[in-house]
Amino acid sequence: MDKVTICVDAMGGDNAPGVVLEGVEAALRADEDLEVILVGPQDVVETFADGHDRCTAAFASEVIEMGEHPANAVRSKKDSSIVVGCNLVKEGKGDGFFSAGSTGAVLAGGVLRIGRIKGVKRPALCTIIPSPVRPVVMADVGANADCKPEYLVQFAHMATIYAEKIIGIDNPNVALLNIGSEEAKGSQFAQEAFALMKEQVPNFVGNAEGNDIIPANYDVFITDGFTGNMVLKTIEGTAKTLFKSVKGVMMSSTPRKLAGLVLKGGLKELADSISSDTYGGAPLLGVKGACIVGHGSSNATAIKNGVLITAKIARQKVPDLIAEAIAR
Amino acid sequence: MDKVTICVDAMGGDNAPGVVLEGVEAALRADEDLEVILVGPQDVVETFADGHDRCTAAFASEVIEMGEHPANAVRSKKDSSIVVGCNLVKEGKGDGFFSAGSTGAVLAGGVLRIGRIKGVKRPALCTIIPSPVRPVVMADVGANADCKPEYLVQFAHMATIYAEKIIGIDNPNVALLNIGSEEAKGSQFAQEAFALMKEQVPNFVGNAEGNDIIPANYDVFITDGFTGNMVLKTIEGTAKTLFKSVKGVMMSSTPRKLAGLVLKGGLKELADSISSDTYGGAPLLGVKGACIVGHGSSNATAIKNGVLITAKIARQKVPDLIAEAIAR
Repeated sequence: MDKVTICVDAMGGDNAPGVVLEGVEAALRADEDLEVILVGPQDVVETFADGHDRCTAAFASEVIEMGEHPANAVRSKKDSSIVVGCNLVKEGKGDGFFSAGSTGAVLAGGVLRIGRIKGVKRPALCTIIPSPVRPVVMADVGANADCKPEYLVQFAHMATIYAEKIIGIDNPNVALLNIGSEEAKGSQFAQEAFALMKEQVPNFVGNAEGNDIIPANYDVFITDGFTGNMVLKTIEGTAKTLFKSVKGVMMSSTPRKLAGLVLKGGLKELADSISSDTYGGAPLLGVKGACIVGHGSSNATAIKNGVLITAKIARQKVPDLIAEAIAR
Repeated sequence: MDKVTICVDAMGGDNAPGVVLEGVEAALRADEDLEVILVGPQDVVETFADGHDRCTAAFASEVIEMGEHPANAVRSKKDSSIVVGCNLVKEGKGDGFFSAGSTGAVLAGGVLRIGRIKGVKRPALCTIIPSPVRPVVMADVGANADCKPEYLVQFAHMATIYAEKIIGIDNPNVALLNIGSEEAKGSQFAQEAFALMKEQVPNFVGNAEGNDIIPANYDVFITDGFTGNMVLKTIEGTAKTLFKSVKGVMMSSTPRKLAGLVLKGGLKELADSISSDTYGGAPLLGVKGACIVGHGSSNATAIKNGVLITAKIARQKVPDLIAEAIAR
């Protein structure tokens, strides 16, 4: 594979730096052409980099905490791991940046430090929705709580490229999340977005409803960041509670416990297929470099997968393809 | 119990009139103080009414189909079962109206025919979210795709009464659906709604996220009709697909099939606990009478439960309590 250099925020996530270091180690083992620049406090990153081939250290003395105002923190904490990591990408020293830290701060770092691709109105947070049927793609899932309808046209172009190049969906179709399937349905915003997408997005196939997502009835779901984030967290909460309830049934008597043992392996596979850890992160599409946000609760596997998908996005030149699509 | 008269749309739903008649029969059996006015074509409703105590017939020669423009259909089809049923409530001949027909048409019938309670800016579609943890309440789930922040204050007052009187939740708390839990989070709309609710809704406790709904972390979830409908259908689609996948695991080998048999009863109970059929319908709150919309795919049990909950809303005088709360 092509050589690629990914900057990784050693301090990102609830269990940093421990699981981040574990995840980076696993990613380096899995991908022989991957180089990592580990960004964080000297005492954390230096020893690790010394002990690992293809890993160098970049020092960052500050950490942006989960509760801080993202844009303010990015502006004031110039020596934070997120800002230093994003700057390395901007300077061309890294091809991409991965962090499981504060989503807002990584988004702000991506926009303010790595910078928007020319012509992109608003970068969008895109994610793979892990469905047991097959993975599908959704954008925006939270970068832009307030959108104009025209932003959604660009989200559609960007998410299509992601679905094609990273998930490997051939000729993905695109649907607009709306309430009701007919053209004239939904809010004023959704109706305007529908009209623009119909005109400007060649692979647009119409409206999708909430119950089209997990059954994977379309390839790419486009929406504003408020709705997308709401839907994404609703799916997480629903799946988690249902699995817990199924487990509860399997613990409710001795025969059921025994039956549960027989099914354990299959249910574990099912749970893994819909776990966000499988993909490890959501890309901020529309900035000049791969920029991926991991879940705060990431374990080492999620970190590893997040770093590897960052490398894939960089190798597939997703930012360049987006620049071309937007310039058209 | 108090005598109560409910008008039922014989032609509402995918399997009407068959399952509607079955459901009405079951409801009449379950509630000895219930009277039903069955509304529909003479050949459907007359024979049934003749054969059942406490059931009378009201003729309506037209039917509003699922695809029709709701408000236009309600205005033009004056002899449709939905319009005739709503008129009976308006005239005081019925205490409530139940239909599993076109949601949009029932909402339009409720607003245009039964009429808004004085001071109510927008009636809201409210629903019980069937969680395996415990039932919670959400409004609006689709009556108003476009909302002003002040509507949500009234939705909160109305849904609180519903949660208390119909679900039996003591002193229900109210949360605003938003992305992020802190006060300053979310869209412009959500921030404005937060400020108003904080000031005007005594039982308001703050923001809730999508992953708070099915775990039942709050009692009443308030949102605009676009977000509410999206979230509701996302939950339905997620639960349905996950149950199908769990069944798939239980069919994937002979030992797993046997284990599945042991668990079948428990999983059926779990599936029932989250089935929308258990509650049978969503009330349009803010109109001068009980007005309940059933799921189009309702079976006889759902129809029965829908008619019984309409009776309960009428007996508990929910519309009167809403009028008092709004007048305050």
